[in-house]
Amino acid sequence: MRPANPRVSIVGAGPGDPELLTMKAWRTIKAADVLLYDALVSDEILDLAHPDALKIYVGKRSSDHTFSQEEINAMIVSNALVYGHVVRLKGGDPFVFGRGGEEMDYVRNAGLEVEIVPGISSSIGVPGSIGIPVTHRGMSESFWVVTATDKNGNLANDIRKAAETDATVVVLMGLGKLDQIVDLYTKQGKEDLPIAIIQNGTLSNQRVVTGTIADISLTLKNNKMGAPAVIIIGKVVRLYRPTELIHTYQTFLS
Amino acid sequence: MRPANPRVSIVGAGPGDPELLTMKAWRTIKAADVLLYDALVSDEILDLAHPDALKIYVGKRSSDHTFSQEEINAMIVSNALVYGHVVRLKGGDPFVFGRGGEEMDYVRNAGLEVEIVPGISSSIGVPGSIGIPVTHRGMSESFWVVTATDKNGNLANDIRKAAETDATVVVLMGLGKLDQIVDLYTKQGKEDLPIAIIQNGTLSNQRVVTGTIADISLTLKNNKMGAPAVIIIGKVVRLYRPTELIHTYQTFLS
Repeated sequence: MRPANPRVSIVGAGPGDPELLTMKAWRTIKAADVLLYDALVSDEILDLAHPDALKIYVGKRSSDHTFSQEEINAMIVSNALVYGHVVRLKGGDPFVFGRGGEEMDYVRNAGLEVEIVPGISSSIGVPGSIGIPVTHRGMSESFWVVTATDKNGNLANDIRKAAETDATVVVLMGLGKLDQIVDLYTKQGKEDLPIAIIQNGTLSNQRVVTGTIADISLTLKNNKMGAPAVIIIGKVVRLYRPTELIHTYQTFLS
Repeated sequence: MRPANPRVSIVGAGPGDPELLTMKAWRTIKAADVLLYDALVSDEILDLAHPDALKIYVGKRSSDHTFSQEEINAMIVSNALVYGHVVRLKGGDPFVFGRGGEEMDYVRNAGLEVEIVPGISSSIGVPGSIGIPVTHRGMSESFWVVTATDKNGNLANDIRKAAETDATVVVLMGLGKLDQIVDLYTKQGKEDLPIAIIQNGTLSNQRVVTGTIADISLTLKNNKMGAPAVIIIGKVVRLYRPTELIHTYQTFLS
């Protein structure tokens, strides 16, 4: 039997810290009949769901494609038709390299209503929470968010252009291309430009390295970091002073 | 008497819809001794504060500077020293053209601890919540967030460069410069590029107009819109189909 109101909410879960979930996401997750969630969504957030809700992991990591995007699209729609309200829960914001637009489009073309609940994007929230502002008077009057890899696995074209500008550049999913990024900036004569790499941003196991274009590759090798990581390049990285910032981690049910 | 623990939290309140507040912002606001808030923070969010908390409006609108930035900086620190925990509450994300970086810097230089709580930036969340993704495969592989006006009131330099690229461009505080923005894109031969303008984004009185670079100025004149507005320029605007999206507005205390 088709449920009375099949529908889909595409929801951003934020960058990692469960408390960076929005109130709207919280309410939407609690109302879900089915949760389809990615690798970067924390257990604490999944535990908000109703005990009877189905929770289905559809995460993809770069070398471990459990489901294709086409399969995920079809699962969203079929679960809505069978169970009612599907919440598609994605790390960060669903529209920042999250392929949320494709999912929205697929759901609409299937004739179902869809809702978008924005999330804190790692691109802004991860550097921000450690005191690195994406914009700052006298340092940066704009920011450009890029991914390092195009859909064919090559260095993305927009990052080449971004390296030529004065914008703060935030690179998501860029760790594997760091040496090529360093080359780009070096060719622009920007060896002294500050750069920070933040692994597991906003989580208690967060790690941060900073340096300049000239030395960051060695620093990274010396500190062995892995995905997920946010790279931020620009003068604003000079504002990073970790010992003078408060960080609190709380379970949000307390 | 100096309080035991003077400290400052710089908190993003999100783009408008009170439910787009994060859980962390919610907790932080409830714990505040003093709230210093801007024009774009809703009453419903301010009502979260403890009844004994001081609430001080320090909003600036473009032609109505009630407090200078220097005065606000000093008020943050002096209130922390006298009352304890100051929450500096800003619309959107505090580091996206919010001058939050300057406030962080001032507070640290005064020797006080400071915490940053990111918020949903209007740049991503406002177009996102109406189904316009800042990135989308085959349409845009990056997005560039700019403001239209530099600190001297002239057209910002970065928006000139942004108009030359294939990035989705999001312009904040740009409505008064729309004709100049249109000129920039027209000179690039981009008359047909889609553009959307969203006023009061994520609020129940939200208004949206869409068009192309060629016709948006006339459309805006015919529809008289004012600040605050988000402008988004790029092929992704073609995904906007308002009648197929769910929007819910709820008071989050219900």
